[in-house]
Amino acid sequence: MSETTAKPSVALLGLGIMGSGMARRLLSLGFSLAVYNRNRHKAIPLGEAGAFVAASPREAASRAQMVLSMVSDDDASREVWQGEDGALLGAAPGSILVEASTLSVDWVKSLASKAAEHGCQFLDAPVTGTKPHAAAGELLFLVGGSAETLSAARILFSALGRDVIHLGPTGSGALMKLVNNFLCGVQAASFAEALSLVQAGGLDRRKVLSILTAGAPGSMILKRMAEKVETNDFAPVFALRWMAKDIRYAIRSASEQKLTLPTASAALADFLQAIADGHGDEDFAGIVKTSGFTGF
Amino acid sequence: MSETTAKPSVALLGLGIMGSGMARRLLSLGFSLAVYNRNRHKAIPLGEAGAFVAASPREAASRAQMVLSMVSDDDASREVWQGEDGALLGAAPGSILVEASTLSVDWVKSLASKAAEHGCQFLDAPVTGTKPHAAAGELLFLVGGSAETLSAARILFSALGRDVIHLGPTGSGALMKLVNNFLCGVQAASFAEALSLVQAGGLDRRKVLSILTAGAPGSMILKRMAEKVETNDFAPVFALRWMAKDIRYAIRSASEQKLTLPTASAALADFLQAIADGHGDEDFAGIVKTSGFTGF
Repeated sequence: MSETTAKPSVALLGLGIMGSGMARRLLSLGFSLAVYNRNRHKAIPLGEAGAFVAASPREAASRAQMVLSMVSDDDASREVWQGEDGALLGAAPGSILVEASTLSVDWVKSLASKAAEHGCQFLDAPVTGTKPHAAAGELLFLVGGSAETLSAARILFSALGRDVIHLGPTGSGALMKLVNNFLCGVQAASFAEALSLVQAGGLDRRKVLSILTAGAPGSMILKRMAEKVETNDFAPVFALRWMAKDIRYAIRSASEQKLTLPTASAALADFLQAIADGHGDEDFAGIVKTSGFTGF
Repeated sequence: MSETTAKPSVALLGLGIMGSGMARRLLSLGFSLAVYNRNRHKAIPLGEAGAFVAASPREAASRAQMVLSMVSDDDASREVWQGEDGALLGAAPGSILVEASTLSVDWVKSLASKAAEHGCQFLDAPVTGTKPHAAAGELLFLVGGSAETLSAARILFSALGRDVIHLGPTGSGALMKLVNNFLCGVQAASFAEALSLVQAGGLDRRKVLSILTAGAPGSMILKRMAEKVETNDFAPVFALRWMAKDIRYAIRSASEQKLTLPTASAALADFLQAIADGHGDEDFAGIVKTSGFTGF
């Protein structure tokens, strides 16, 4: 990005792990930034770092040409965009609204319509990546919406991401993310089932982990889980209840298309059991605890 | 392996893709080899290459110090070892019997007992790898049984494999392989579900494949399937019906331990549907056809 490019003013709604990382990245690049978080406490350090701390999503949006939301689920998204002091009320016609949270396809499409009613452009652009990626501007954005809007928003994506992939019309980014995450969730659930069986069979567990992670099923998900399991560290990088949410949204999207996702449904049952067992706020690798695996 | 090491005589039972590759490898290294295949036709080229073509598993085993079986399933294994002219009747006391097929844990344990009754040593040693690995001696053996027997059989494994991993007592190799394969099967089934959803959602399919295979769920299984799907080539590298069999054996092993494998059960239902739809002899990537995905 050239230093001479005029930077749009940005509002960032939602200052969780990812949102905070994005906010710091934008500030470090010299963007004029307004931030909003339901719990204002989390916004204070960003205010000290130069952001305007808004009292409502509406106020944040009213100060920005681009509004970016990074919240946890459909309910939270509904609240920041169309709550009493929601961002849709503050956003000026012509501004670009970007929903980067992982949400249901249905809600994202509905939000796009509302944005259009307000004369705003809209993109669904969920991200893949974790905290360090957010801080370093190395996220991957999966975008749905018009090519023109994407082009107009590219300066924002370039600041935050290493790559932007345009999948299709509105909802395509949301669906791509849900598909990616439900596959991760199924792999996690099946890996948990595998570890319980391996334990019952009395196999050498470290050798098993090494074989599985190096072998044909050895995705990043399995490698990450194996590390969590071996070190018995279930501090959340991606919380188990969010994985359950994403699988649920994927199944709902499939259902709207008259499709079933049998492996995802089985995995969801495993995850819901884990939440019932009290592991919802742990990392999703904690699913192994519910399968009966007792660790190392 | 030193050229001066005395090579044991070997009997190889089952000359499918993997068995034939192993046989050629052993012949090329100068092992004295007897081969047996139910369909004698497949043995003829190996006879021309220097192997003794036996009329029965019993005859093959009677000529060897080590007997290696590489067949398709429990039924075929039962037949070559304890059929009317089975290898157990021909194997001399003290010989080493190696079952390298992917079989149920139950049957493998039962076979180990029968081997002991005949005064033979036994290892379950299923392999991971495909045809080129077999021909090049680059298989990975997953071994269950005593360390002493493994040590005595190492010359055979060294000839055929790049690595031998000892997982535990009898049945551990079989279980390890089933766990590995059921994870592969679940990933394949969920990937097929994902593609049907992506198609229904109208996403750019090539971009989807590239994102998923490069991302967190991107195992070798997904990469292999993506390649098959993109080239519309479902010639069997590993046939769909064998994947179904392995998932079934994994579920049965879990059941013996009073465990369930919910994602595996869901995947098995997908695979059985694919077999019912006539795709059993295609590569397991053909599972995508049953999910409703219509290809590129």
